[in-house]
Amino acid sequence: MSTAMDQADRPQLVELEQQLSAQLEHYRNAGLKLDLTRGKPGTEQLALSDALDGILEGDYRDSAGSDLRNYGGLDGIPEAKVLFAEMMGVAPGEILIGGNSSLTMMYFAVLFAMQQGVAGPDSAWARENGTIKFLAPVPGYDRHFAICQQLGIEMIPVALGDDGPDMDQVETLLREDPLIKGIWCVPRFSNPTGIVYSSEVVQRLARLASIAGDNFRVFCDNAYAVHALVADAPALDNVMDAFKQAGSEDSLYLFGSTSKITFAGSGVSFVAMSSANQATFKQQLGISQIGPDKINQLRHVKFLRDSHGLDAHMGRHAALLKPRFDSVIKQLREGLDGWDIARWIEPSGGYFVSFDTRPGLAKIVVGMAASAGVVLTPAGATFPYGNDPEDSNIRIAPSFPSLADIEQAMKVFVCCVKLATVQQRLASA
Amino acid sequence: MSTAMDQADRPQLVELEQQLSAQLEHYRNAGLKLDLTRGKPGTEQLALSDALDGILEGDYRDSAGSDLRNYGGLDGIPEAKVLFAEMMGVAPGEILIGGNSSLTMMYFAVLFAMQQGVAGPDSAWARENGTIKFLAPVPGYDRHFAICQQLGIEMIPVALGDDGPDMDQVETLLREDPLIKGIWCVPRFSNPTGIVYSSEVVQRLARLASIAGDNFRVFCDNAYAVHALVADAPALDNVMDAFKQAGSEDSLYLFGSTSKITFAGSGVSFVAMSSANQATFKQQLGISQIGPDKINQLRHVKFLRDSHGLDAHMGRHAALLKPRFDSVIKQLREGLDGWDIARWIEPSGGYFVSFDTRPGLAKIVVGMAASAGVVLTPAGATFPYGNDPEDSNIRIAPSFPSLADIEQAMKVFVCCVKLATVQQRLASA
Repeated sequence: MSTAMDQADRPQLVELEQQLSAQLEHYRNAGLKLDLTRGKPGTEQLALSDALDGILEGDYRDSAGSDLRNYGGLDGIPEAKVLFAEMMGVAPGEILIGGNSSLTMMYFAVLFAMQQGVAGPDSAWARENGTIKFLAPVPGYDRHFAICQQLGIEMIPVALGDDGPDMDQVETLLREDPLIKGIWCVPRFSNPTGIVYSSEVVQRLARLASIAGDNFRVFCDNAYAVHALVADAPALDNVMDAFKQAGSEDSLYLFGSTSKITFAGSGVSFVAMSSANQATFKQQLGISQIGPDKINQLRHVKFLRDSHGLDAHMGRHAALLKPRFDSVIKQLREGLDGWDIARWIEPSGGYFVSFDTRPGLAKIVVGMAASAGVVLTPAGATFPYGNDPEDSNIRIAPSFPSLADIEQAMKVFVCCVKLATVQQRLASA
Repeated sequence: MSTAMDQADRPQLVELEQQLSAQLEHYRNAGLKLDLTRGKPGTEQLALSDALDGILEGDYRDSAGSDLRNYGGLDGIPEAKVLFAEMMGVAPGEILIGGNSSLTMMYFAVLFAMQQGVAGPDSAWARENGTIKFLAPVPGYDRHFAICQQLGIEMIPVALGDDGPDMDQVETLLREDPLIKGIWCVPRFSNPTGIVYSSEVVQRLARLASIAGDNFRVFCDNAYAVHALVADAPALDNVMDAFKQAGSEDSLYLFGSTSKITFAGSGVSFVAMSSANQATFKQQLGISQIGPDKINQLRHVKFLRDSHGLDAHMGRHAALLKPRFDSVIKQLREGLDGWDIARWIEPSGGYFVSFDTRPGLAKIVVGMAASAGVVLTPAGATFPYGNDPEDSNIRIAPSFPSLADIEQAMKVFVCCVKLATVQQRLASA
C-alpha cells in the first residue's frame, strides 16, 4: 500500500488493519525487550572516556597551586573554567564549574530566584503578588518542567518551531503578564526536536528582558552545545554575546555539562552568567556546599585538554551515534514515506528524534509498542504536566541500544503507528 | 607568674601587661603567617587516599551489574550502601549515598521539609502559621546555622554540655513552642567542643518527637563518626536503633560523609533515614538531579573495602592528627595552667579544640592574634547569627598546619589570651 492512507476505502482499511494486527501479534510473540526511552550514552560511548580514572598520576594541584583534594573553591578550578568557558562562548570569569549535574545547577538557579532573589531578597519571585510562571517551548525536556512543578511555578507552553520558540507568541505573552519570570531554552539540538535556534531567535531572546516584568531570566540549557552528528550541522550564535549586545546579560543563565561528553553520571557541570548574577548566585550556592569535586574537574581538563581535544572526542561520539540515528530515519522513511500519517524531524545533532503521530494517537502508539516489548518515553512527557494537548509527540532516543535493537524496535514502532492510525480511521468512519 | 591572675595587685598587673605587650610586639615583628581557621585535613592526610584515582582499573560495574559510568541510580551503589550503612549503624536499605557534600544533603533535607513537606505537601513547615524555629546547641557549626538563616528559620541557642545538649532546656522549649521543627546535632566529637553525646541524651533525643509539634526532625550530622584520636575514645550509642526503640525513627535524619576520611572535596556523602522518610526524600531529591557520581562511590568502596579497612585508614589519620592536638593542648597547659583565665576541652576525636576566654574577650583575642599573623575562626562563628552572647568561645582547628606552625601559633594565642585578660582586669579595676 503505497498511496496515502486517507485515499483508502473501508475494505482496504479493514484489510490493512488485519495485516498490521497480525504483524504486531508476530512481534508480541517474539519476546522483544527493547528500550528507546532515555537519552543516555551507549556503552561504547562511555568507553571513550575510560582514561579519566587514573589520569592524574599523583598530580593534584591546579594552575594556581591549590591542592584540589582539599575543601574550598566554590568556583571550580581555573583550567576547567578556561576549557568550558571556550565551549560555552563566554569568558573564564563568567563561568562556574560544578559537580556532576547541570540539573542541580538549574534547580538551584530557579530555587534561588524564587526564594532568595536574583538580585537581593527584595527581588525574590516569591514576594510577587501572584503565581509565578515560566514559558515552556514544546515539545521540551521533562526534567525542566519537573523543577517548575516542584517549585510551584506555572508553565505556559509556547510552540517550538524549526528555528526556536515562536517569538511572536513569547513576546505577546511577556507583554501581557509580568509574572512570567522565565523561559526554558535548549538552543542547540533542542530536546527532543533537535532544532537549532536561529540568529534572529537568539537576538529576540536577548531583548526579552526589556519587555518582561522585573527579574526575568532566560534559562538556557546548552546541553548539546558540541553534540553534532554531522560536520555541517548548524552553528548556534554566541548566546552570551547576543545578550551583551542587547545590554541584557543579567537576564541570561547559560548551563552546560559534560554528561554526554565523558561519563554521563560522573561529569562536570557549569553555568555561565554575568558578573552581577555570579556574585549573587555564589553567595546563595555557598550555603549548600563548600565546593564541587575539583579532582574530577582536573581529570576532565587533563582528558579533554582543549577545544581541539574536545572536538576530536565529540567526533568519536558522532561516529558511534550517527549510524543509530541513520537507522531510525531509515526505518521511518521506509515504513512511512508516502503514507502521510506522521511527521518527524531528522536532526543534525543532539540525542533524539522527535516524532508526531496524528492527533490523539501518541499514547496509543506508545502503549501498543510496549505490548510488543518496545519501551518508549511516555507520551506527553515532552509537555508540561505530561499533557500533550494533541497527544501526538513521541520522543525517540536511539543512543543507547545496539544498531540491531534499534532496527528491530523501529520496525515495531512503525507497525504500531500504522495500526493505530488505521484503527483511528476505521473508528471515525 | 604562677598564681591566679585575680590575686595580682595593680602594679603586678601593669608589669605583666608590659611584659605581654612586648612579647606580642615581638611576635608581630616576626612576620608570621599562620592559619588555625578551618577544619580541613592536612596534606599528609589527603595523601593517605591517593590510591583512589586509578583504583578502578577499567571495572565500572557494581555488584548488580549496572554500568556506573552512565546516568541513573539516585540511591547510590549497593556496595557503598553496605559499607556506609555499617559505619552509620543502619541497614543498607536505610541509607542513600550521594555526591561530595553532606552539607548539600542537609541543605536539601531542610529545604524540602520547609517547602515540600517531610510527609507530603500538607506537612510543609512553610504552611504553618508563624516563623519556623530550630534549636541550635552552642557552640556549634556555622554552616548548619547558615542553612537555617538562608531558609528563614529562626535559631534558638541551647547549651551544649559535656554529654550533649541540655535536654531539660530542649524539652522545655519544645513543649512550649510547636513551631520548633528541628534541632542540629553533631553527636560524636561535636564541632567544636569534641564531646560525645551520652546514652541518656541519645535516648532523650529519640523521645523528642512525642513532645514536639508535628513534623519535627532531629538533624544529626555524624560528621566525625569514626574520627577518634585515641583508641579509648567514647563510643556513641547506635542513634537509629535508639530512635527505633522509641518508635520515632521517622523523626531522625542521620548524615555522614567521607570528607574527612578520603579527599575532603571529592568524597561521598550519605543520609540514613526511615523507609517512609526515604520514599518522600527521594521523590523530592530526584527533581534536582538524575543521580550522584557513582564512579566515585565505587572508587571509595574499592579503596576502603570494609569496616576493617576503614578502621585501619582512620588509624593512619589519627597518627597524623594526634600530635597536632597534643601540641595545642601542651601549649595551652604550659601557658595557662594555674592562671584560671580560660577553659578548654581536650577532645578524644574530631577536628577542633574549643576554647573559652573570660566573657567579652573572644573578639579581642582573635583580633590581637590576627595582628600578629595568626588567623583564627572569627569569634562568634560557633553561634547562630555569629552572636556569642558571652563573647568567649574560640574554635581552634589544628589539623592543617604543620606541628611547628601549630606550636608557634599557639604561643601567640596564649600570649593574646593573657594580654587581653590583663587589659580587661586593668580597665575594670
